[in-house]
Amino acid sequence: MELRLVRAFDRLIREKGYANRSEAIRDLVRDALVQQEWGAGDEETMATVSLVYDHHHGDITGTLNGIEHENLGLIVSTLHVHLDHHNCLEVMVLRGKPAAIRAVSDRLISTKGVKHGKLSVATTGKSIV
Amino acid sequence: MELRLVRAFDRLIREKGYANRSEAIRDLVRDALVQQEWGAGDEETMATVSLVYDHHHGDITGTLNGIEHENLGLIVSTLHVHLDHHNCLEVMVLRGKPAAIRAVSDRLISTKGVKHGKLSVATTGKSIV
Amino acid sequence: MELRLVRAFDRLIREKGYANRSEAIRDLVRDALVQQEWGAGDEETMATVSLVYDHHHGDITGTLNGIEHENLGLIVSTLHVHLDHHNCLEVMVLRGKPAAIRAVSDRLISTKGVKHGKLSVATTGKSIV
Amino acid sequence: MELRLVRAFDRLIREKGYANRSEAIRDLVRDALVQQEWGAGDEETMATVSLVYDHHHGDITGTLNGIEHENLGLIVSTLHVHLDHHNCLEVMVLRGKPAAIRAVSDRLISTKGVKHGKLSVATTGKSIV
Repeated sequence: MELRLVRAFDRLIREKGYANRSEAIRDLVRDALVQQEWGAGDEETMATVSLVYDHHHGDITGTLNGIEHENLGLIVSTLHVHLDHHNCLEVMVLRGKPAAIRAVSDRLISTKGVKHGKLSVATTGKSIV
Repeated sequence: MELRLVRAFDRLIREKGYANRSEAIRDLVRDALVQQEWGAGDEETMATVSLVYDHHHGDITGTLNGIEHENLGLIVSTLHVHLDHHNCLEVMVLRGKPAAIRAVSDRLISTKGVKHGKLSVATTGKSIV
Repeated sequence: MELRLVRAFDRLIREKGYANRSEAIRDLVRDALVQQEWGAGDEETMATVSLVYDHHHGDITGTLNGIEHENLGLIVSTLHVHLDHHNCLEVMVLRGKPAAIRAVSDRLISTKGVKHGKLSVATTGKSIV
Repeated sequence: MELRLVRAFDRLIREKGYANRSEAIRDLVRDALVQQEWGAGDEETMATVSLVYDHHHGDITGTLNGIEHENLGLIVSTLHVHLDHHNCLEVMVLRGKPAAIRAVSDRLISTKGVKHGKLSVATTGKSIV
């Protein structure tokens, strides 16, 4: 891990009152596993995926665009905001089965150069009166 | 107005669903004022730029993203729609002085690989009743 | 026509060198008729529609949203920018047959309270190498 | 870390497509830092708010639009997708201080007629390597 990242993490650990670094990491891992449990269902649903990345990082813009085009049917559209000379925020609206949404979201978020990625589950509203 | 022109206009008014002739003329006048505000002036205004391109064409996604980041202050946000395995539609909303908007629009539209580009002028709505 | 609009139009008429007001209106009408000729074709295409409106004007937000929902299949998505305390810019991406796009665009633009509306034709990119 | 946890995590890493364990942990740490930057701080940050609502519910479209206009400076732009004849998905991109974003998000999500609302924190990317 980069030194700056380690230091910021240690500050967070102190603020949150963790006994040590591995205790904190264990909690993060548990939380990720809980999130992973989502999406057992097979009904069409909606989600958004937010990505923050530095567009100077290799061909990241092209790579993400490529993944998105392979998943045409799932991605309704994408809102792109240029944050500063380096950083982009991309918010995608997806519609499809949970497993399919999860799969493309995982690929996008784990792409090298993505600084922050988040899947946020929504709904088509149909099953909610 | 010549009778023929009046008749053609009345047909257009019906087709477009306007309540009456003066409502339709008011819209034409407003549109002319927007064009005018746009062409000469130095007042802040709005515009959209639409681009259709094949994202497989060289590093076009990165190139466009680069131009956009150089013009951060002008570009409010961009809506991106994946059309098929090759083609993207990007619609940008811009806010700034007409000359600056025109300049970045020209650069984007003339980028190699852009199949279709169009600047469409709008307004901030302030000067229009 | 509101007095402020008439005055702005008279200024524009002088700048453009028209002999009188009705000469200028005749030109606007002719131009609208030319635009109307577009879209005889029957192939699926893309377009954007931009609308500027004052969201305080009656129930305009609900009215536009209603028209849009009646045309679900045509409207891919809409980008909404809040311009100031009164004015909104809405940019819609549409996909469908020219006649259908033209029809919904006409309804939206002619809605009372829309200050400025513009249909801008794009392409799906398929027929363009 | 307990062996069971390590194994579950390794499964998750494979499923998500990370290159290795430390790449995955780095992402968890970054995410935790984003959450943290978010909760307490006074630094400008980014967030998205997703809302699903039935646009036939009273004047909900106008109400939401009104709240959004009162918070002009915070809302960069909004992506609107018409889900079916009743339901809308709105995804807003916000930029500002955490407390202000949280406040407007709470008001939007608690608006009567909103079926599902979610604040998802992001980052401007500046503080993250």
